[in-house]
Amino acid sequence: MAPPASRRLDQLVQALQRLPGVGQRSASRMAYHLLQHDRDGALQLAHALQAAAEGIRHCRLCHTFAEEDVCPTCADPARDPAQLCIVETPADQAAIERTGSYRGRYFVLMGRLSPLDGIGPDDIGVHPLLQRLQATPAVQEVILATSFTAEGEATAHIISRLAQALGLKVTRLARGVPVGSELEYVDLGTIAHALADRR
Amino acid sequence: MAPPASRRLDQLVQALQRLPGVGQRSASRMAYHLLQHDRDGALQLAHALQAAAEGIRHCRLCHTFAEEDVCPTCADPARDPAQLCIVETPADQAAIERTGSYRGRYFVLMGRLSPLDGIGPDDIGVHPLLQRLQATPAVQEVILATSFTAEGEATAHIISRLAQALGLKVTRLARGVPVGSELEYVDLGTIAHALADRR
Ligand SMILES: [Zn+2]
Ligand SMILES: [Zn+2]
Repeated sequence: MAPPASRRLDQLVQALQRLPGVGQRSASRMAYHLLQHDRDGALQLAHALQAAAEGIRHCRLCHTFAEEDVCPTCADPARDPAQLCIVETPADQAAIERTGSYRGRYFVLMGRLSPLDGIGPDDIGVHPLLQRLQATPAVQEVILATSFTAEGEATAHIISRLAQALGLKVTRLARGVPVGSELEYVDLGTIAHALADRR
Repeated sequence: MAPPASRRLDQLVQALQRLPGVGQRSASRMAYHLLQHDRDGALQLAHALQAAAEGIRHCRLCHTFAEEDVCPTCADPARDPAQLCIVETPADQAAIERTGSYRGRYFVLMGRLSPLDGIGPDDIGVHPLLQRLQATPAVQEVILATSFTAEGEATAHIISRLAQALGLKVTRLARGVPVGSELEYVDLGTIAHALADRR
């Protein structure tokens, strides 16, 4: 068998497999495409990866990805500080924002409980959330918008107990959201309806 | 709707969509995974992309990806210069190498004819192949190992005419390779058999 034609090509194929859902064959196809047809794209992606990995941190208040200490949503004085909506991911937050029917604030867990995967309360943002609730007396209502999956429900349950122990009103998105689905993939009307019907 | 939380995040999601087969949703998931769980992977991929895009060129003789002027396979004096096997991609070449049943040399077209996509003889390596054949009198047999698809057959047909005009013997992998399939995905035994039965 011939020696590999290029060590750099091998390393690129290896590195592409760090992407979720990309196996050896997809990685080879991606590397071939970039090198043969889109070297500008390869350099642009290299730059974007480095800029993101080195320049993106977590918002001090809501924990989502941000470039500044505080993200634009948290910095917006027009958002109602009495409501705090708890979501699992930035994508879920974006889905709620797209409904245009929520003007409160957010906390982004960046994950959800998954005991089978070894993901406990300390691995998602439960501790920073508790700090946030204790440090922000303006919060009156915690709206649980975690997924309607077993893991999302368990996450909601833990946060519900913490918030109730602090004397806060706790609501959950109405079950208009189809059970078993991830919020990110739910249509906007359903999310808006579930927000209005929260209990 | 809230302003985007991070311009760098948006740019990363955009850049990831330069990868073939990656849409907006996959790109978001990839960006989230890298930033939340694997920043080392993001930096490693950034480095590999840049190193490959800037350091990989085409072998002067066989046209495949290489870091040197001439790739290791072409530089190997043990390979038989009388046989030149024509393949579409480095992945196809690798598939043939894995059979261990071919000791001749290669030419890698880096594509195949696809009139519907506007890919003609000038877009794949037909012209460099002609130069290679004219400059290398040692070649006696051209083995066509393009895919057994309509596009691969059309590519083989054009090259066959060129090579015959130069007085060279032209063979084609035997039809042991399942019709309609891409060589890269064919099992090794079938490829070895097809090589032995070439006509
Ligand atoms: Zn924030
Ligand atoms: Zn070569």
